[in-house]
Amino acid sequence: MSHPLLEKHRATLDGALSAIASRGYWSAYPEMPSPKLYGETAPEDGKKAYEAHLGQRFELGQPGQKDWHGGEKSPYGVELGVQYPVCDIEALIAAGEAAMGGWQRIGADGRAGVCLEILQRLNQQSFELAHAVMMTTGQGWMMAFQAGAPHAQDRGLEAVAYAYREQAFVPAETVWEKPQGKNPPLVLKKHFEVVGRGIGVVVGCGTFPTWNTYPGLFAALATGNAVIVKPHSNAILPAAITVRTIRAVLAENGLDANLVTLAVANDRATTQKLVTHAKVKSIDFTGGNVFGQWLIDNCRQAQVYAELAGVNNIVVDSTDSYKRMLGNLAFTLALYSGQMCTTSQALFVPAGGIETDQGHKSYDEFCADLAQAVSGFLAKPEVAHAVLGAVQSADTLKRIVEADSGSLGKVVLASSKLENPEFPQAEVRTPVLLACDAADEAAYMEERFGPISFIVKVADTAAAIALSERIVSTHGALTAGLYSTSEAVIEAMTEATWRSKVALSINLTGGVFVNQSAAFSDYHGTGGNPAANASYADSAFVANRFRVVQRRYHV
Amino acid sequence: MSHPLLEKHRATLDGALSAIASRGYWSAYPEMPSPKLYGETAPEDGKKAYEAHLGQRFELGQPGQKDWHGGEKSPYGVELGVQYPVCDIEALIAAGEAAMGGWQRIGADGRAGVCLEILQRLNQQSFELAHAVMMTTGQGWMMAFQAGAPHAQDRGLEAVAYAYREQAFVPAETVWEKPQGKNPPLVLKKHFEVVGRGIGVVVGCGTFPTWNTYPGLFAALATGNAVIVKPHSNAILPAAITVRTIRAVLAENGLDANLVTLAVANDRATTQKLVTHAKVKSIDFTGGNVFGQWLIDNCRQAQVYAELAGVNNIVVDSTDSYKRMLGNLAFTLALYSGQMCTTSQALFVPAGGIETDQGHKSYDEFCADLAQAVSGFLAKPEVAHAVLGAVQSADTLKRIVEADSGSLGKVVLASSKLENPEFPQAEVRTPVLLACDAADEAAYMEERFGPISFIVKVADTAAAIALSERIVSTHGALTAGLYSTSEAVIEAMTEATWRSKVALSINLTGGVFVNQSAAFSDYHGTGGNPAANASYADSAFVANRFRVVQRRYHV
Repeated sequence: MSHPLLEKHRATLDGALSAIASRGYWSAYPEMPSPKLYGETAPEDGKKAYEAHLGQRFELGQPGQKDWHGGEKSPYGVELGVQYPVCDIEALIAAGEAAMGGWQRIGADGRAGVCLEILQRLNQQSFELAHAVMMTTGQGWMMAFQAGAPHAQDRGLEAVAYAYREQAFVPAETVWEKPQGKNPPLVLKKHFEVVGRGIGVVVGCGTFPTWNTYPGLFAALATGNAVIVKPHSNAILPAAITVRTIRAVLAENGLDANLVTLAVANDRATTQKLVTHAKVKSIDFTGGNVFGQWLIDNCRQAQVYAELAGVNNIVVDSTDSYKRMLGNLAFTLALYSGQMCTTSQALFVPAGGIETDQGHKSYDEFCADLAQAVSGFLAKPEVAHAVLGAVQSADTLKRIVEADSGSLGKVVLASSKLENPEFPQAEVRTPVLLACDAADEAAYMEERFGPISFIVKVADTAAAIALSERIVSTHGALTAGLYSTSEAVIEAMTEATWRSKVALSINLTGGVFVNQSAAFSDYHGTGGNPAANASYADSAFVANRFRVVQRRYHV
Repeated sequence: MSHPLLEKHRATLDGALSAIASRGYWSAYPEMPSPKLYGETAPEDGKKAYEAHLGQRFELGQPGQKDWHGGEKSPYGVELGVQYPVCDIEALIAAGEAAMGGWQRIGADGRAGVCLEILQRLNQQSFELAHAVMMTTGQGWMMAFQAGAPHAQDRGLEAVAYAYREQAFVPAETVWEKPQGKNPPLVLKKHFEVVGRGIGVVVGCGTFPTWNTYPGLFAALATGNAVIVKPHSNAILPAAITVRTIRAVLAENGLDANLVTLAVANDRATTQKLVTHAKVKSIDFTGGNVFGQWLIDNCRQAQVYAELAGVNNIVVDSTDSYKRMLGNLAFTLALYSGQMCTTSQALFVPAGGIETDQGHKSYDEFCADLAQAVSGFLAKPEVAHAVLGAVQSADTLKRIVEADSGSLGKVVLASSKLENPEFPQAEVRTPVLLACDAADEAAYMEERFGPISFIVKVADTAAAIALSERIVSTHGALTAGLYSTSEAVIEAMTEATWRSKVALSINLTGGVFVNQSAAFSDYHGTGGNPAANASYADSAFVANRFRVVQRRYHV
């Protein structure tokens, strides 16, 4: 007696379940913003849908509404002017709690079916979501579409698949029949009910308001919990569109829409009250270390899944494709102006230089060549704008100025401000490359979010690997990279990453980049170093979000 | 290329995997202490093996040994006189860390195989372990054998099965091939390595030193971690025997024995230093709220799996088997003198009495009848001693005296001290039954560990269900019970337990008792109320104990 929505989306769920078992390539939602795939009018419809939000109040019909709040500033300098409902936190929590009973009763099948329906509906809104993501985060259009819509939806589906797998493993009932020798057996009927742990709060970030929100949102939802989405104050619109669609699908299916609500707060105290509330049992967070650590320290009533800062790094030992290596690195450093949590910040290069297919390259030559690769790649304005997007926050702009001043290291490539003819107010900056010595730890050994990278001179490759391991273990990292033609070096770096627990990309010279993480295949974060205590997605990401309540009686 | 020990024990693992999927009856290790099952000489050999430890130094060959420590006091009054090695904590941690590399490299298959071999060897030591458990905890012989040996081994195996299932789901490698339209696909080879999170510490309790230790021990071990076992100061011997056997099996199989060590501390500061150590990544704890909460508050570098105190309770509404209900309750309250974490402490009975197959019984009649059922059941000394065992701690003896004084409620049945002819020094006490009003919350609404139970007079059944839900939600419980002939009452209680998240036993009148929890079938604790934040065993108990570290490269 499966749920009709699960039957409707069965093939998608089966595909996702198969993908998480093999972790090969798979995707449910097309990543190309093509009218052939999304419908001839989809691009225009999506743009109009996005524009229709501007300057308006975004009605959600949530309980306890007491105010409106807006104030998003677009990194592209356009006026958004959307106002969002501010609701009483206690009202949202009480309404979420009240909605959980019905959500529990439709079971894991029903919850998976409804989540799949939601994801399909969000996929149909991909152009609308992409514009909202682009304008609130400063991402370029293609990234905003792909990461903001289909890739985020894939990550959400991935969480649903893991959640389904774990819940489906719990039998609904069993007959326990224990032999008693010559006497009749003891027989008990047992029922096992999967119940959510309570309210889940998902705290979004300013750079990837859907990609980093959907995993926790759908993991908590699919496992039977109510969810309150607390977006970043500058990237509310993508979350608001998402929540409205979820509420609509819930209501259409006879479920209480208040299962999922948007919490827009105009002060920090309200957010703190929300996340420390006794009824809140899980918190998913992406963002800086200060608030992340505050959550871990203060929200001990909840399980906190946190993605924090780190110092992603790459060891450069040798290569047989020098030019393609530089091209790959240039793209990595430029993409979304280095505002990805996976962008490399530190490149470790031996003081004696590296061997390449173009001969030996000294440390200084490598610095110069990488600088040239970056500036060459960004020489065409249409490429530069598509790749760089715009700088999301004033703090990042400040960090670029500081790096450019040379106070953190020798400036190998200075940042420049580009004019975007389409968005004259956009804050566009090219990356800064700095050279420094391994001893200058204060410079490169903390996250400097944005297009700021260090080419760190290390004694040799062994020292580079040891430094990478130490940085990941103590400061965290979501990604590590290695360029080497030596099997022994690859093996040593591999073993270092087993100890420091970071994902490793080896000799990327083509169309895959160290900062890209593909749903269903790449585990995003290991959860084993300070940059994140959880991974997108694995069993650990879902298994602790629900409980099994049994009852038993003689039959 | 499976591990030879996994091949050897494949049938056992398959049985366990099948059992956790169906949660029906299954057991790998015979629960009857029968020479037919364990070998003709097993009882005598086991007794001799136990006796050989007495008055001796228990050599383990661990690193950093600096002292010997003993001092276990048997509740049966016998002299144990065993001395255990006291080792430097840093040495144990460093040795555990060093041992993890080899443990990682044999993979999930190898780890499961070695764990299964360990469990088989422990099973062969069941009589030795049973004597050690009996003499350190005060359990009666049959419980010491069953709960201390085969049932504990089953719980350990259950954890191994869940751990294996989760790790086996992670593919060792994959080829990721992403289509690129008319261009050649992007192709990456990816490897996924399962790595343990770090040192696991398992803190044992004084009443069930194996049953409550093996789940965390084997969950942490099977998922790739080193484990330091920190036993309760009065129940070291069963842990020491266990650790010695594990170390022997590891060494026989070319693995570093220091993967598992015993930490005996003669002061609290050492234990605190151990559990707060940065390298300690998981802590399994069974015990009181004070230290448990201290662990949760202070060991934030680790995932803490804690089973704490609670107020287990039973709602008595009506029955069609009054006599058998009383018999079942009497056994429950008497078993191991109420020193089980699952023993019922509060029975909620309507002020207006209950309907039974023997007619209406007033609240007072129920109190008197239950008192008579308990004293009748314990009237034969051989039954009494077998069931009651001895009182484990001086604190419990004090609580019995306090309850007997009438200060907590009207004494319906007073405790009496029994003389055990076999063990003249044994501290044997029969249960205390107290009557009180629902308003006397201070009396019954905190755990009073030991043979102390309250028959609480409540307004009616609805009030009893509401009170049960509130107690479980606020004070926690591992078990709840219900006696009722009404479907509506059963449904209301069931829904209450879904909200408060506690396992419910309904109308137990035969050979199953509310305080019994069967491996592979009953989830012990839900992890969803204050009595425990984890369950034996489920996916959540294992999935967060390892991390997946990937590497990828073009092929």
